[in-house]
Amino acid sequence: MIYDHFFSEALGRLHSERRYREFADLERVAGRFPQAIWHAPDGPRPVVIWCSNDYLGMGQHPKVIDAMVETAIRMGAGAGGTRNISGTNHPIVELENELASLHGKDAALVFTSGYVSNETGIATIARLLPDCLILSDALNHNSMIEGVRRSGVEKKIWRHNDVRHLEDLLAAEPFERPKLIVFEALYSMDGDLAPVNRICDLAERYGAMTYIDEVHSTGMYGPGGAGIAAREGTSHRIDVIEGTLAKAFGCLGGYISADAKIIDAVRSYAPGFIFTTALPPAVCAAATAAIRHLKTSQWERDRHQERAARLKSLLHAAGLPLMLNDTHIVPLLVADPEKCKIASDLLLSDHGIYVQPINFPTVPRGTERLRITPTPYHDNALIDALVDALVDVWTRLELPLQRHVLAAE
Amino acid sequence: MIYDHFFSEALGRLHSERRYREFADLERVAGRFPQAIWHAPDGPRPVVIWCSNDYLGMGQHPKVIDAMVETAIRMGAGAGGTRNISGTNHPIVELENELASLHGKDAALVFTSGYVSNETGIATIARLLPDCLILSDALNHNSMIEGVRRSGVEKKIWRHNDVRHLEDLLAAEPFERPKLIVFEALYSMDGDLAPVNRICDLAERYGAMTYIDEVHSTGMYGPGGAGIAAREGTSHRIDVIEGTLAKAFGCLGGYISADAKIIDAVRSYAPGFIFTTALPPAVCAAATAAIRHLKTSQWERDRHQERAARLKSLLHAAGLPLMLNDTHIVPLLVADPEKCKIASDLLLSDHGIYVQPINFPTVPRGTERLRITPTPYHDNALIDALVDALVDVWTRLELPLQRHVLAAE
Ligand SMILES: Cc1ncc(COP(=O)(O)O)c(C=O)c1O
Ligand SMILES: Cc1ncc(COP(=O)(O)O)c(C=O)c1O
Repeated sequence: MIYDHFFSEALGRLHSERRYREFADLERVAGRFPQAIWHAPDGPRPVVIWCSNDYLGMGQHPKVIDAMVETAIRMGAGAGGTRNISGTNHPIVELENELASLHGKDAALVFTSGYVSNETGIATIARLLPDCLILSDALNHNSMIEGVRRSGVEKKIWRHNDVRHLEDLLAAEPFERPKLIVFEALYSMDGDLAPVNRICDLAERYGAMTYIDEVHSTGMYGPGGAGIAAREGTSHRIDVIEGTLAKAFGCLGGYISADAKIIDAVRSYAPGFIFTTALPPAVCAAATAAIRHLKTSQWERDRHQERAARLKSLLHAAGLPLMLNDTHIVPLLVADPEKCKIASDLLLSDHGIYVQPINFPTVPRGTERLRITPTPYHDNALIDALVDALVDVWTRLELPLQRHVLAAE
Repeated sequence: MIYDHFFSEALGRLHSERRYREFADLERVAGRFPQAIWHAPDGPRPVVIWCSNDYLGMGQHPKVIDAMVETAIRMGAGAGGTRNISGTNHPIVELENELASLHGKDAALVFTSGYVSNETGIATIARLLPDCLILSDALNHNSMIEGVRRSGVEKKIWRHNDVRHLEDLLAAEPFERPKLIVFEALYSMDGDLAPVNRICDLAERYGAMTYIDEVHSTGMYGPGGAGIAAREGTSHRIDVIEGTLAKAFGCLGGYISADAKIIDAVRSYAPGFIFTTALPPAVCAAATAAIRHLKTSQWERDRHQERAARLKSLLHAAGLPLMLNDTHIVPLLVADPEKCKIASDLLLSDHGIYVQPINFPTVPRGTERLRITPTPYHDNALIDALVDALVDVWTRLELPLQRHVLAAE
C-alpha cells in the first residue's frame, strides 16, 4: 500500500493519546435484555449491558420483533431501490403517517438514520432559504454540525443552552433575514435539557425558524412519547422535529416531521434522501409497532425514570461522582482517558458489566466518563451489582470516592 | 410557517421544470417477485416491477429472508447503539469478515448505506493524506461527489472514462503528492464500465491510491460475485473497494474493503461511521446469507445476463431507442422530461408495468430515459408483455420507432 505510513501515523496518534477504540463484540439475546453474550478473545461470556441506547428495551419487545418477522416473511428483506425508483414500500408510508401523527405535524420523512436526517435535512432546509443564517448550539451533535457545514451558509454558534447569547446573536440581524435555530432537546452525554420554550419565544420575536433534535427524547418523554417539546406544550411552535428510530424505538432509521411543504421540499431536494436505498419494509414495520406501543403504554416511560432515579440515588450514596441532570442519562465522571478505559475493562473482565468508556472526541477532553443508561429491564439486583462493581473499580483505580455531586457543565 | 413562500417557490420550480417527483406506493410480495401490489390512489392493483435495484431478486430469496427472520427472533430488532457504544453485534463482525473474503482484502467496514460509505469513506481517507489531490470521474455518483466535497481537499475532475485525460492530470502533479483516484466500476444510468485495468496502470505509474465504487457490480460480476475489478483480475491493484448491501444483495447497508490499516483508520476517524447507530443484526445476517449464496451459485448471474440480452434484442428488433452497453442495465432514451413521465404513467395505468422515469438531476437534461432492470425472475411472457407495452406507449406519444441503436455517451 502506497500511503501505508500516513494511515499508521493516524492510528499511532490515537494510541498515544489513549483514545484508540476497541469495539466489544456482542450478541444480544431476545427476551433476556439487558443480558447478552460477549464474544471475548478467549470465548463467549455472559454480560449485562449498561450502555445501550435501546433505552426502553423496545428492540426486543415481542410486538416489535413480530412486526419485523411478519413483514420480512410477507415482503422480503430489502426495499429494492431508492424512494423514487421502486423503493417506496407501503410500510414506509405508514411509518411516515405514524410519525406525523406522533408529533402533531402535517407530514414526516424517513431517512436511513438520524445522522443522515440531520446532515441532509439541515443542509437542505438552510440552502432553500436565501441568505440564511444558522444559529447552532455549541454542544450540538456531530450530525448537526455536518449538516450546518454542508449547507454552506453562514453560521453562528451560541453558548450551550444560553438563551441570552442566542438573543444577542438574533438581535444583531435584520428581522427579514432568514434564520434557522438548530438545537437538541436532550443532550445525551450530560443528560441536560434545552430551554425549549424560551428558544421558541426568541424565534418568534426575531423571526427565526426552529429545528429540534429529539433523538434522545422521543418515545421517552411527553404525551405518548412525543418528546420534550410536546411535554413542554410547545411542539406547535417548533418548525422541524427530528428524531431517530434507533434509540427508544429500538430499530434503525431517522426522520423529520414538519409542515407538508417543508417535508415536500426536503423530499425533493435533499441528496442524502434522494440518492440512497430506502429502509427495508421490515425495519419500518418494526419501528411503527414500537411507536404505536409507546403511544399508549406509559409503563416503560414511568419505569425508565424510576430505574434511573434509583440508580442515581445509590451511586450518590456510595460517593461516586455523578454528573447531575433531570433525565435518564447517568454519567459518572472519570476525567482521565486512560483510567476511563481501564475502569470499563475491569467492569467487563471482573464483573461481567459492559459500560463503554466515553472519551474525546465524543466528549471534551478532561470530562471522560462512564455513561450509564438504565432501562426498564434493569432490576434491583442488577442495579445493586453495578454499584458494588463501580465502588470496587473506583477503589482499585484510586479514583476519589466522596459523597458529592457534580453539576453538568 | 414563517418561510412558507420560500418552500413553495422551491416546489414551484420543480413543477414548472416538469421534474417534481411522485413516489409509487408499492407492496412487495415475497415469493412472487417481480410481481407486486401498487397502492394506487383508487385502491390496490397488481403491477410488475421493471426498475428494481434488487437486481438478482435476492431480497426475496428464502435463505435471505430466513436469516433475517431467524436473527430477529434470536437477537431482536435494532443494534442498540453506535458501533463503539454497545452496537457491535456478532452478525456485523461476521458480515465484515465475509466482505473482506469476497474481495480478497484484509478487512472490511460496514456503514448504514452505500451512500454513507462513499461520503464519509472518501472524505476521511482524503483528509488523512497530507495535501491530497482527488481525481474524480465526471459521472461519479452524488454520494462520491459529496465525499469529495466534504474532504475539503483539492479535486480535479477527469472526463468520464477518459484515461488520457486522467493521465494528463496525474502527470501534472509531483509524484510524491498523495493522490486519490475515485471512480465507479459500472455507471448505473448508462450501464457502461470503467477501464479498470488502465486506471490501475496509471495509478501505479504516477503514485496514486485507487478507490472504486462497485455498487452496481458486486454480486453480479466476477468470480463469486466479487465485482468488475475481480473479473478483470485487478482487485489486488485497487486500494479501496466500496459496495452496497442494498442492490444485488437485496438488503440495506454499505461497506468498504481494503488493507487492515486503511479500514482501522476509517473506523477510527470517519464521523459518518462513528456517530450513528449500527445496522440491525438481522439485516447483517440477511446480507451475509445473500453474499454466501452468490459466492457459490452462478445461476443468478448467468440468468441475469441472459435475460438482459434477450430483452435488449427484442427492444432493438421493435425499433425502440436502446442505449447500448455491455451490462444488465437497459436504458431507453426518451430525451424529454414530460414525455418520460407520461410514458411511465401510461405503462403503470394501462399495462400494470412499473418503470420509473429518470429525469434531471439523476441524468443530464436531454437524456431523460426509462431505465429498465430485468432480473432472473422476469420470464419470457413478462418480457414480451413489456416490449408490446412500450411499443404501444411509444406510438401513442408519437416517439420515434426506428431500428437503430444509440451508443451511451
Ligand atoms: C443528538 C443525536 N442526533 C442524532 C444521532 C444520530 O442518530 P442515529 O443513530 O439514528 O444515526 C445521535 C446518535 O446516534 C445523537 O446523539
Ligand atoms: C454508484 C452508486 N454508489 C452508491 C449508491 C448508494 O448506495 P445505497 O443505496 O446503499 O446508499 C448508489 C445508489 O443508490 C449508486 O448508484
